Amino acid sequence: MITSDNILSAQERIAPFIRRTPVLSAMQMRDGSGLEGRVTLKLELLQAAGSFKARGAMNRLKTLPPERLGHGLVTASGGNHGLAIARTAHVAGVAAKIFLPSNVAPDKVAKLKGWNASIELVGSVWDEANEAALAFSAETGATYVHPFSDPIVVAGQGTLGLEILDDMPDVDTILVAIGGGGLIAGLSTAVKARRPHVRVIGIEPVGSPTLRACLDAKRLVTLDTVSTRVPTMACRRTDEAILQTVIRHVDDIVLVTDDEMQAAARWLWFEFGIAADLSGAASIAALRAEKVPRSANDHVCALICGAGTDGMA
Amino acid sequence: MITSDNILSAQERIAPFIRRTPVLSAMQMRDGSGLEGRVTLKLELLQAAGSFKARGAMNRLKTLPPERLGHGLVTASGGNHGLAIARTAHVAGVAAKIFLPSNVAPDKVAKLKGWNASIELVGSVWDEANEAALAFSAETGATYVHPFSDPIVVAGQGTLGLEILDDMPDVDTILVAIGGGGLIAGLSTAVKARRPHVRVIGIEPVGSPTLRACLDAKRLVTLDTVSTRVPTMACRRTDEAILQTVIRHVDDIVLVTDDEMQAAARWLWFEFGIAADLSGAASIAALRAEKVPRSANDHVCALICGAGTDGMA
Repeated sequence: MITSDNILSAQERIAPFIRRTPVLSAMQMRDGSGLEGRVTLKLELLQAAGSFKARGAMNRLKTLPPERLGHGLVTASGGNHGLAIARTAHVAGVAAKIFLPSNVAPDKVAKLKGWNASIELVGSVWDEANEAALAFSAETGATYVHPFSDPIVVAGQGTLGLEILDDMPDVDTILVAIGGGGLIAGLSTAVKARRPHVRVIGIEPVGSPTLRACLDAKRLVTLDTVSTRVPTMACRRTDEAILQTVIRHVDDIVLVTDDEMQAAARWLWFEFGIAADLSGAASIAALRAEKVPRSANDHVCALICGAGTDGMA
Repeated sequence: MITSDNILSAQERIAPFIRRTPVLSAMQMRDGSGLEGRVTLKLELLQAAGSFKARGAMNRLKTLPPERLGHGLVTASGGNHGLAIARTAHVAGVAAKIFLPSNVAPDKVAKLKGWNASIELVGSVWDEANEAALAFSAETGATYVHPFSDPIVVAGQGTLGLEILDDMPDVDTILVAIGGGGLIAGLSTAVKARRPHVRVIGIEPVGSPTLRACLDAKRLVTLDTVSTRVPTMACRRTDEAILQTVIRHVDDIVLVTDDEMQAAARWLWFEFGIAADLSGAASIAALRAEKVPRSANDHVCALICGAGTDGMA
């Protein structure tokens, strides 16, 4: 399991290659129901390549021996990790190959092409695309970067937790969307080491309760089916290190429906002109559906973790 | 002409009803050509109702006698001022009627409906829609709010200048898109009163050089034709007070093409996940087309003044 020291090292390592993203107080809304009280949006969708994934990918790049880079980078992704790897490969001056499930958002495919990544659509969920990515790596020697089952990547994502604590010195609760669990594992490790009383709450789709199912079963489980239409949050199985971190550091995991995320993305666009993807809207979905128990004075950080056009649909 | 005191009063008056928008350093881009050196984005597209127009509209509302509000508010707008008036009317609990030129962006029409405004498309440029708005006001008693030819509105827009000076204590140059000129008149008055050495540079479309033509002719002129396809920057004529303010306080006005704005909006979406409208991308267009003379150390504020879906087209 990663430590807060791993995250501090990552922060120093990646700082010159990522953006410090801004925060925005949620106020002056037409329909603020579910967002009463103090809610602050962390606009991580403005990160390089459109999501927090730039952090973990860059931490991975900067810890790879240069001789490992010659055959490029490869991964499988619901979209955002792929964009981050494509951007990271661009920074390193090497090729990127990205395998994606067929339901990846078209705007992300367009952006991947803009980063000059070679892309391939395989299967209907991440796990199937991932098999193709592993095979490609074995065949070509390209360096495979796992989106979450890699402590270096997890430590990189954790830097977002440190940044939120700096942005919001009085934060009480942080809401974090979960795909494979890399972000929440890193973020919660960082947050609890520095401010143990801050609550970290995960959000999963009803149709892909990857970590909720593990917590309920008290062990690592593989989901029989994944029915969410949110590609960045569709994952059949996390890993043991992430599960143990989540058990130790995450206060709760709540579930939201795809329609709640869709409505939240529309809300973000209408109320704030923020173009989030469905996972980026998950924290707002949880608040608006009143899935997060809050006291009146709680200062909540709603992490808007990824950019997309879902709110305009 | 408005004074900096008018703007300070406006700031105090409207602060509880608008957002303090964040800034973001322009870095970690794939293609930063034209944005070398220090450039900071002022994300005013995250303002309530999607643009700086919320400021002027709210200053107008808060200085109207309550008995003037009974028949609602009416205006003509390329989109953003209409959204701001619709939102302001919602805050006041009165009806809003918005006249729009037929080329208004569909996403703005959708947002106007979300604010419960009654909308009507009239003519092909703002001036034609404005005649209909004035007629509606005369007929119904609704209070007409001009988008720029109103010192109270101009003072409200000027608060954005104060905010930028607070956000960026070492700013050297501020780039401001121009439609009718209300924003740049207010903003430049605020900026020059406090920090006279800061340059304020306006940006107009080649197809609607409303103020550039006045500066060149050294008098108020009416454009024969307006050929830009950017509805929020299409305006045949400004007014004398704005012209005199611009002559006194604005350092230069540069022109960009519609295609340069379109490319800049795409760039903002690709590089930052920022969903700007074409006027919101005008400052970036001017930088990328190298229309703004800069020294290597200049700290430039690129004002992103309005939200929209143009960058995804």
